[in-house]
Amino acid sequence: MSKHVLAQNQYGKAENRIVAVTRKGSDGAWHEIRDLNVSVALRGEYRDVHLTGDNGNCLPTDTTKNTVYAFAKEHGVASPEAFGILLAKHFVTSQAVIHEAQIRVEEYAWERISVPTRKEQHSFARKGQEVRTAQITYSANTGLQVLSGLKDLTVMNSTNSEFHGFIKDRYTTLKEAYDRILATKVAARWANSAPAAADEEHDWDRSYQKVRRHMLEAFAETYSHSLQQTLHAMADRVLDNVSTVNEVRLNLPNKHHFLVDLEPFGLKNDNEVYFAADRMYGLIEGTVHRDGVQPVIATSDWITA
Amino acid sequence: MSKHVLAQNQYGKAENRIVAVTRKGSDGAWHEIRDLNVSVALRGEYRDVHLTGDNGNCLPTDTTKNTVYAFAKEHGVASPEAFGILLAKHFVTSQAVIHEAQIRVEEYAWERISVPTRKEQHSFARKGQEVRTAQITYSANTGLQVLSGLKDLTVMNSTNSEFHGFIKDRYTTLKEAYDRILATKVAARWANSAPAAADEEHDWDRSYQKVRRHMLEAFAETYSHSLQQTLHAMADRVLDNVSTVNEVRLNLPNKHHFLVDLEPFGLKNDNEVYFAADRMYGLIEGTVHRDGVQPVIATSDWITA
Amino acid sequence: MSKHVLAQNQYGKAENRIVAVTRKGSDGAWHEIRDLNVSVALRGEYRDVHLTGDNGNCLPTDTTKNTVYAFAKEHGVASPEAFGILLAKHFVTSQAVIHEAQIRVEEYAWERISVPTRKEQHSFARKGQEVRTAQITYSANTGLQVLSGLKDLTVMNSTNSEFHGFIKDRYTTLKEAYDRILATKVAARWANSAPAAADEEHDWDRSYQKVRRHMLEAFAETYSHSLQQTLHAMADRVLDNVSTVNEVRLNLPNKHHFLVDLEPFGLKNDNEVYFAADRMYGLIEGTVHRDGVQPVIATSDWITA
Amino acid sequence: MSKHVLAQNQYGKAENRIVAVTRKGSDGAWHEIRDLNVSVALRGEYRDVHLTGDNGNCLPTDTTKNTVYAFAKEHGVASPEAFGILLAKHFVTSQAVIHEAQIRVEEYAWERISVPTRKEQHSFARKGQEVRTAQITYSANTGLQVLSGLKDLTVMNSTNSEFHGFIKDRYTTLKEAYDRILATKVAARWANSAPAAADEEHDWDRSYQKVRRHMLEAFAETYSHSLQQTLHAMADRVLDNVSTVNEVRLNLPNKHHFLVDLEPFGLKNDNEVYFAADRMYGLIEGTVHRDGVQPVIATSDWITA
Repeated sequence: MSKHVLAQNQYGKAENRIVAVTRKGSDGAWHEIRDLNVSVALRGEYRDVHLTGDNGNCLPTDTTKNTVYAFAKEHGVASPEAFGILLAKHFVTSQAVIHEAQIRVEEYAWERISVPTRKEQHSFARKGQEVRTAQITYSANTGLQVLSGLKDLTVMNSTNSEFHGFIKDRYTTLKEAYDRILATKVAARWANSAPAAADEEHDWDRSYQKVRRHMLEAFAETYSHSLQQTLHAMADRVLDNVSTVNEVRLNLPNKHHFLVDLEPFGLKNDNEVYFAADRMYGLIEGTVHRDGVQPVIATSDWITA
Repeated sequence: MSKHVLAQNQYGKAENRIVAVTRKGSDGAWHEIRDLNVSVALRGEYRDVHLTGDNGNCLPTDTTKNTVYAFAKEHGVASPEAFGILLAKHFVTSQAVIHEAQIRVEEYAWERISVPTRKEQHSFARKGQEVRTAQITYSANTGLQVLSGLKDLTVMNSTNSEFHGFIKDRYTTLKEAYDRILATKVAARWANSAPAAADEEHDWDRSYQKVRRHMLEAFAETYSHSLQQTLHAMADRVLDNVSTVNEVRLNLPNKHHFLVDLEPFGLKNDNEVYFAADRMYGLIEGTVHRDGVQPVIATSDWITA
Repeated sequence: MSKHVLAQNQYGKAENRIVAVTRKGSDGAWHEIRDLNVSVALRGEYRDVHLTGDNGNCLPTDTTKNTVYAFAKEHGVASPEAFGILLAKHFVTSQAVIHEAQIRVEEYAWERISVPTRKEQHSFARKGQEVRTAQITYSANTGLQVLSGLKDLTVMNSTNSEFHGFIKDRYTTLKEAYDRILATKVAARWANSAPAAADEEHDWDRSYQKVRRHMLEAFAETYSHSLQQTLHAMADRVLDNVSTVNEVRLNLPNKHHFLVDLEPFGLKNDNEVYFAADRMYGLIEGTVHRDGVQPVIATSDWITA
Repeated sequence: MSKHVLAQNQYGKAENRIVAVTRKGSDGAWHEIRDLNVSVALRGEYRDVHLTGDNGNCLPTDTTKNTVYAFAKEHGVASPEAFGILLAKHFVTSQAVIHEAQIRVEEYAWERISVPTRKEQHSFARKGQEVRTAQITYSANTGLQVLSGLKDLTVMNSTNSEFHGFIKDRYTTLKEAYDRILATKVAARWANSAPAAADEEHDWDRSYQKVRRHMLEAFAETYSHSLQQTLHAMADRVLDNVSTVNEVRLNLPNKHHFLVDLEPFGLKNDNEVYFAADRMYGLIEGTVHRDGVQPVIATSDWITA
């Protein structure tokens, strides 16, 4: 028997890819689809599974997968968040040994390929822009926690960005910049308020679109002196405009676009031709939350305090 | 000295990432961008470079990179094809030892983030859908060859696809399908006619949009009995509608969506819930060309005749 | 001015790729290399950078990059951990506004291509197996925290794995398994004790090899009734054998290998032919630590308590 | 009916992932594994499938998948090449409408995790270095063509590489180099002679190891004035030493390692500290073959002459 201590542990089936088709209209010829990647993690009384290989408390990961697909039929997929809430509550209430369940969802967006000549509409092209994300955690003790988010949304301002006035130490060679490209690939998560999470009528798709729009507008409208300033403006704008969001965390890699030196060729590069670099990149991360609210979104740290 | 024969060889700088900004309007406040990945390959008299390490005939790959960036300033980027034509001709005419040059371009599309409250427009979000491609080859002997294309355009029909009546041999277990999802990630290349390639006024952006639209419409409108049939319909539609295209080659992975068996849970899956598989996948490839035209687009074969 | 609260934030240059060459021997003809990917994150007094764009407290990310390369020359790269400790301490002690620094390192291993006919040895092939990782965090308040780890180490037992006796609910269809393949891609992190972290003579390469070996041996020698049991055995073995390690966290995706049904072809599949699936996969995660020690390694959770 | 011409087309199931376990010894306790990714492409009389959706000539891609798994049981996997030859011949001889079959195989290598304390040996770690490749094409008309290869083998010389004496044109800024790192990720294909391909006793594993070793040794031992020179030396060495190989094609990206300028920090960088760049990269490709032999390996061109 181990003399060591088993601490946080979880298990489940990850990356269940599911496409759900809904038929609308009197003849069902109008199709709508949701395209999801659903992961399940269960936490509870799993000491024996780890120590003796006794699986008496273990609901197989295969069963969690089956449940995801069955729930899509039984309950439909109203939104990533709504679907995740149903699943998380199900696992915790179905087995006493499961104390907490966490559901993570990615959603891939599709747009309709319109065919004007026919009534039936069942053709789609994947949008390919950002991936929508959600994480739902439920336990009897701590209740329901709903985080929403997006990732891989790449944006650029081709001017109205400066960077100067910074510390210069022995290792500083960077020139001050008064007109540069600012580009980043937005990864955002936001914590929804407890009343929103508890509201079965909450329109998750609409609040997603609102948050997304306000972040993009803040990115575009901010005259930037640093990517940190832009990050804060984006989070602020969301908190100012979407009352059901309590906290925003942004992870903004600074995708460098370096002005190419064309002088050796007798050419002046008047902020026209840039080299788009892959690595290294600046990485700016931060959380902004409403006053009086406890932040809950994990940082990207490996270490807990 | 080697007693073996040096055959086809080529070299150059690959994946030069370039963002070009153009300012429009009397005050230059309206920005437009093109975001390209440009690769250069040169062919010619490189026997000594390989056999003795004498680099007297070798234009450095670094120089080919510099040329890409300098040309973006000197000539602008009207389109991937137009930019590639300029570069290919330059290399062949600039050094006698370069007999042929091939330029490959990927273009990433961006859409404007509109800011109604200001006149300046310089904010963009990457579209993230298909990647546009072009390959331009030029030599004094064989002239100019311009291929255009796209890749990573994922599309789906959620009905109007069947597959049956096929061969059954000892290893066949597949059930006949009378209503299935048909999904694929389109990779397409098309060969432009010599007059189009030679026409300095040819509108490459417009012909790209036309080809793309006709392929999507053919995919959406074809009632499919096999992905091969859909492939042929897509190519046909392009040849019927875009007179400057002589040949189309399509590479269509059949992205399988398997209907999930929900009967063990007492549920009927009426074409509603699918598992989207990654691998293995069907792979359907084919070339369709105008009668009387010699096909020029390489197959995905490793082996030449 | 924002009425919201700026919480945890950090910034720096990520993924600085560095290859360091050391020449040994009287004539320097024996080369050794270390191939690293180094990321820097700084935490401190950055409120003004976020709120007003005043960069007076901001050491540029470009400077943190320069520092990484300069330190490789000034101090050498003894190991990922030793190099990270030097960098973390440097940033915190160099600027009063930097309260905490976190350095993350990936190391890619190379093996020598031996050339028996010559004395000089400077040829290498990348091993391509696991990536070694390290994370070093330093602040004046909390001192030094050194985590080590590895990822992408794929292992398989082709027998001696069972899985049965599990919960059966309405959604369970999994058959009990008495002989299956057990395969996983190991991601491991371990926390080093404070004395080891503080010991400038600590041999980080040696302790890495010890941990790696004990994990592999435990994987190979454990007759497994669940991947959880194997996980616990691997962590136990490390804690039993490497006294400077206080805590181990393992992230073990269950890479499913499904026995292919060959009966339709009149063949018996006696655990010989398997389909190796990509997705979905089981995901088993857990922390094991010494009694009396506080666990510090972050879980993969998005949410902090 | 289409008025256009259907040219080269092919179809099949791609990326069938298969792990085959063989038990050796009187008690079967010594396990050996082969881990393959097998793709099938069929060519033949498929005009009706494309034009009318009549699948009467179409062997389903699903059947080709089943055949791959069944053959692993019926015939075993002696080597990627031997397995591919069996499959290619089977498809062409099993159905008159299949005129040619092409099988592509990737193989992933594993090494044994030795457990000295037990007789049973069934534990493995994936090596993670190069991927072995093979392509087998068979038709009644053209007979058997067997290409072998490898990819993703990253190698480096930390000295003994120069580059100078090159052409300087208006766009050249590159400095001549007299001591640089030479690093590349080798992708190689080689054509086996017809007698070797026809010899059922040919030891494909042994010839693979021989080719691999000679390429690595040539890379390590060549004092290089250009990557082209190294490429040619690698191919020459294989042709000189492996009599069953007629032709070698190499695709060698020049993975740039830039010497970091440390002078601004008062440090001299004596070829010690390098920045390893991702993109752009030089790309050097070439074919070398025996005199009197017709080259058959496809170039990376999109265009056939």
